[in-house]
Amino acid sequence: MTLTPSAAPAPKSFGSDNHAGTHPAVLRALGEANRGDATAYGDDPWTARATAQLAEEFGASGVFFVFNGTAANVLGISLMLRPYEAVVCAEGAHLNVDECGAAERIVGCKLLTAATPDGKLTPQLVTDRLGGRGDEHRVQPRAVAITQVTEVGTCYTLEELRRLGEFCRANELLLYMDGARLANAAAFLGCSLADLAASIDVLSFGGTKNGAMGAEALIVMNPSLAATAVFQRKQQMQLASKMRYLAAQFSALLEDRLWLRNAEHANAMARRLADGVTGVPGVQLHQPVESNGVFAALDPELIETLQREWTFGVWDDREHVVRWMTAFDTTEDDVDAFVSGIRAAAGAITA
Amino acid sequence: MTLTPSAAPAPKSFGSDNHAGTHPAVLRALGEANRGDATAYGDDPWTARATAQLAEEFGASGVFFVFNGTAANVLGISLMLRPYEAVVCAEGAHLNVDECGAAERIVGCKLLTAATPDGKLTPQLVTDRLGGRGDEHRVQPRAVAITQVTEVGTCYTLEELRRLGEFCRANELLLYMDGARLANAAAFLGCSLADLAASIDVLSFGGTKNGAMGAEALIVMNPSLAATAVFQRKQQMQLASKMRYLAAQFSALLEDRLWLRNAEHANAMARRLADGVTGVPGVQLHQPVESNGVFAALDPELIETLQREWTFGVWDDREHVVRWMTAFDTTEDDVDAFVSGIRAAAGAITA
Amino acid sequence: MTLTPSAAPAPKSFGSDNHAGTHPAVLRALGEANRGDATAYGDDPWTARATAQLAEEFGASGVFFVFNGTAANVLGISLMLRPYEAVVCAEGAHLNVDECGAAERIVGCKLLTAATPDGKLTPQLVTDRLGGRGDEHRVQPRAVAITQVTEVGTCYTLEELRRLGEFCRANELLLYMDGARLANAAAFLGCSLADLAASIDVLSFGGTKNGAMGAEALIVMNPSLAATAVFQRKQQMQLASKMRYLAAQFSALLEDRLWLRNAEHANAMARRLADGVTGVPGVQLHQPVESNGVFAALDPELIETLQREWTFGVWDDREHVVRWMTAFDTTEDDVDAFVSGIRAAAGAITA
Amino acid sequence: MTLTPSAAPAPKSFGSDNHAGTHPAVLRALGEANRGDATAYGDDPWTARATAQLAEEFGASGVFFVFNGTAANVLGISLMLRPYEAVVCAEGAHLNVDECGAAERIVGCKLLTAATPDGKLTPQLVTDRLGGRGDEHRVQPRAVAITQVTEVGTCYTLEELRRLGEFCRANELLLYMDGARLANAAAFLGCSLADLAASIDVLSFGGTKNGAMGAEALIVMNPSLAATAVFQRKQQMQLASKMRYLAAQFSALLEDRLWLRNAEHANAMARRLADGVTGVPGVQLHQPVESNGVFAALDPELIETLQREWTFGVWDDREHVVRWMTAFDTTEDDVDAFVSGIRAAAGAITA
Repeated sequence: MTLTPSAAPAPKSFGSDNHAGTHPAVLRALGEANRGDATAYGDDPWTARATAQLAEEFGASGVFFVFNGTAANVLGISLMLRPYEAVVCAEGAHLNVDECGAAERIVGCKLLTAATPDGKLTPQLVTDRLGGRGDEHRVQPRAVAITQVTEVGTCYTLEELRRLGEFCRANELLLYMDGARLANAAAFLGCSLADLAASIDVLSFGGTKNGAMGAEALIVMNPSLAATAVFQRKQQMQLASKMRYLAAQFSALLEDRLWLRNAEHANAMARRLADGVTGVPGVQLHQPVESNGVFAALDPELIETLQREWTFGVWDDREHVVRWMTAFDTTEDDVDAFVSGIRAAAGAITA
Repeated sequence: MTLTPSAAPAPKSFGSDNHAGTHPAVLRALGEANRGDATAYGDDPWTARATAQLAEEFGASGVFFVFNGTAANVLGISLMLRPYEAVVCAEGAHLNVDECGAAERIVGCKLLTAATPDGKLTPQLVTDRLGGRGDEHRVQPRAVAITQVTEVGTCYTLEELRRLGEFCRANELLLYMDGARLANAAAFLGCSLADLAASIDVLSFGGTKNGAMGAEALIVMNPSLAATAVFQRKQQMQLASKMRYLAAQFSALLEDRLWLRNAEHANAMARRLADGVTGVPGVQLHQPVESNGVFAALDPELIETLQREWTFGVWDDREHVVRWMTAFDTTEDDVDAFVSGIRAAAGAITA
Repeated sequence: MTLTPSAAPAPKSFGSDNHAGTHPAVLRALGEANRGDATAYGDDPWTARATAQLAEEFGASGVFFVFNGTAANVLGISLMLRPYEAVVCAEGAHLNVDECGAAERIVGCKLLTAATPDGKLTPQLVTDRLGGRGDEHRVQPRAVAITQVTEVGTCYTLEELRRLGEFCRANELLLYMDGARLANAAAFLGCSLADLAASIDVLSFGGTKNGAMGAEALIVMNPSLAATAVFQRKQQMQLASKMRYLAAQFSALLEDRLWLRNAEHANAMARRLADGVTGVPGVQLHQPVESNGVFAALDPELIETLQREWTFGVWDDREHVVRWMTAFDTTEDDVDAFVSGIRAAAGAITA
Repeated sequence: MTLTPSAAPAPKSFGSDNHAGTHPAVLRALGEANRGDATAYGDDPWTARATAQLAEEFGASGVFFVFNGTAANVLGISLMLRPYEAVVCAEGAHLNVDECGAAERIVGCKLLTAATPDGKLTPQLVTDRLGGRGDEHRVQPRAVAITQVTEVGTCYTLEELRRLGEFCRANELLLYMDGARLANAAAFLGCSLADLAASIDVLSFGGTKNGAMGAEALIVMNPSLAATAVFQRKQQMQLASKMRYLAAQFSALLEDRLWLRNAEHANAMARRLADGVTGVPGVQLHQPVESNGVFAALDPELIETLQREWTFGVWDDREHVVRWMTAFDTTEDDVDAFVSGIRAAAGAITA
């Protein structure tokens, strides 16, 4: 699927929040950062500022900008593990499914997966993967990796995070959180980024899906884990030479809580979409809508019809579950047009 | 060193070509690419266009955008090697010295280094590192990695490249070229990018030091080496989700050969600087000036004096060699002011 | 559990076939190989002889001795994969569970596991893990790894192997077979080693569990996969300097088909044990007995009672499944004594 | 070169101390260990005994048996390093030259080499490789690896070891010692194994070149480094299932200090050989003889003549340096015959 920029405007994509472009304020910030020289590799005032802002926002020990979400995840678990140690994560975790084996190659570790329909790990699910501790034949579970918002659009509550953190500390496990859509979780839960990070050792804070051009931050909460980060970031090919341009994106998102407004808006659009299709024949919500994604089981014929005109992905081929994502730039009109399209197509099929 | 953006303008940095900002045309192109949706991960018209442009410019089999120069180098040699195979490179190669062991960790291979005062490898220098072929106890040399422009500012001539390529083919070696400053080589040699790549299997083409915000291209010339690139790029955490913003930078640089004009200008500024300091007491050119860098041996006292006011690095502590880099945005006035400063400081010392 | 060598003889262990010692003929062969000098690293007549014998026995392209089963598995899949490629294997595969993440660290690859109660993979189970081929975000399945005899004592029939091989070839997958107990499979199926290897690309042939002191052979059937083996073996720290002592063990096992007699005997002892406990209350065979292992679900109280006197392991804590292994040196009296012990303990519990 | 075992006895090899077979006492110990069952993977009395013996001999925190010297080196440095950290070692170190890049692949680290004609590192040579500490672009030197006896047959004095250890502690470096021929160093220096290990964090103690069939011990002196060893050993494919047979070899070597007698004898034979060729025209000793190796520069024609009848290797092609190794089983007659051969050949050439 390619949308030619010169063509008549295609309908808004519901395929991914990274189909969206860059928020104008971020683009503006890039222009403003384009003033003369700046020392390379982060020794510049933009990086200093964004780092300080994020450290304060999260109450963090260390902040490290990287290029994409896969890198944030891999670098994050690199800070925690030796190769014979393992990460417990959800079977559907981005880390496990969508990173082309980066963790295995770069960290050399095994991922111990747990099936979980709502994308969330629980102390019980983690416990089930802790077998073999102390046995030299077995990888040694050392970290738990969760995703907030999960890959299926659900959110851990603060209480769930707290319990998981407590469980980890009680079991000598470190807790990593993939926050590619952390802003959307904060918006849904109505809490601060610090609240979300309170029980976490290391997490990522995603800029890209929130309106950045391409920038992620690795946030180290546990002070004992920050020491190796700058070296591992470089070794993992994530050190930007003109780093001011990563940092400036974050400062733009933090200015007047743009990150939160973007996330609130995207969440509201998903809510509007979910409400709009509720009761439509052949459409069944598959997950609670707790962020900017709507997961729905569709009549297969409906999928086929809709994909002729609209851009979105099939999440689960067997159960005919589709994923509809909204972004900071999805408008009410975009949603309403899509809802109309869905209703019309559903009507045509059932007719 | 940090240059506060709000302060009275600091003198132009001669510390690195990545202290410079982004060329206005590149910034403009980013704004123009910010039109509505685009499919993520490179399935978009900007990526298609820049890929086609670069493929034509080089006569390449494959073009793959990555985030930085270290990544281009590591991904490039990943296409060529199994872990027990080795890369012959210059002792001072960026790959060897400045990438925090990325090749060893990510590719798992050994680098076999050769000392070379002018930064260039020759068939003889490579031959000296080919010992042990066929011996299972020894790593097996499989690739040669060169840098064009070299780390000390010199350029391989087309004839030197041709001979090295011939040598490699005759010896079952693949030839990789780190082209972080390839534009400057083309400008110096007065040749095309295709000319530079003619004997090469895989190379990088650097955008960042040429005026991009942050974008490098891996160019695969040897068609048998392209097949694994997309998977290895993802696994090596180099797949940009909003890839249009990497691609658009390259299209901007290719438009009306901006890349060449930027490089020619930077080279001319280095030439002007070198000419300006010729004959100054306490200043001795250390390498021929064949690109946008001036390497000079300085009286240690002069280094100390100059660094109080000017930004540049000491390349070699023992021989008191400094590196002065120019960029697309270095002006004649910048150079002349620096030359005056050098002359004044030199005069004060010798007085 | 430690059996002091000077104590009154402990009852025969049913804990593992590697609790057994070395077959006297193997020990004798080591003595015979201890004649004067031999060139190191395999350039010796013992290695030449054992290599030729195994190559003929299997119809193999390459034979490479290594130290243990984990190494054979890891080296084997190293011959087949690049790091972004993946291996489909059973969830309970030794490669996945019992090798402390060696494949992930050494090969850098992901294992895609399939749940299978009888330890066997089928074309259908493999098919279920082939999702995402061609998608750069996903690891690319490239090899299938099976175990013959499986970890739960079952054997693939020759027809099952043939079908799996056909399936792999039709789907561009390579087929690896962990043959740590391959001799027991040959004994059970009444077939040759070549029959077992006919559909396989690379396999291991285990000496250690068959009466060797410690020696495994990696057998490369697919001639296109042998070229990197000697280098990867060395790099993976598996090149024995006095290799004659690995080779001589294999020659001893091959002499008059000692390997087959050892396996037939161990299998018969398992059969005898299974027959002896059939119908005993609190004992339920859990897997068909197709090799030298008996897997049985036991009354938990019975497990506890028996383990006070006998050495064996619990395979599955939740289902109270135990694993009883026999070896080349397990005698009928050993089995009968164990059966009596089981019957007595079971009687005491049910009484 | 292959010596057929059935042929008329070839002359003793001076090619390597691992051309020798197994000492009869070691072979006997293997037979004695072959008594009934023993729990696998080292939970057996032989392993307990040899471990305790070595721990006492060295004053060690941990003792871990592995299969070969490459494995001991790689496992040893694995205990000390994260991948972005580096090892300083001699250019000619076995770790660097003869292990097919195992350190790079398995540990992922870079080796920083220093040229040293006598095979020994000094604080100054190490200091020269410590550049870039704290600089994220550079690998971070964290360990120093030395070899005792060095690859060219020389020994560090206890005072040299003490000074190097002090230097390492003062510079936050860990000190690893490859002791493939440690016994020969103890014999030459007239000191205990504990003396040799006093300044060392982790070292190997080689059995194989001392008369074992194939067994090396990794000795961890620094108690903070032992914790990960059992897991890394397994993950690095070095856990022997029938470990009693590795352990028993060491107990045999430790019995009545057989290891020392073997080493003293081999050293004496090298001394005898060196004395025998002193003054022979065309033969020039190249290194002091401090162990069981004689390194001599020879007239090229002499090398050619001698290699027709005798087994030995050329160490340095350019300088025509040969390496003559003696072993525990080299006899005075073997040496005298070789000396006669050398004298005769030299005479024929000069005549």
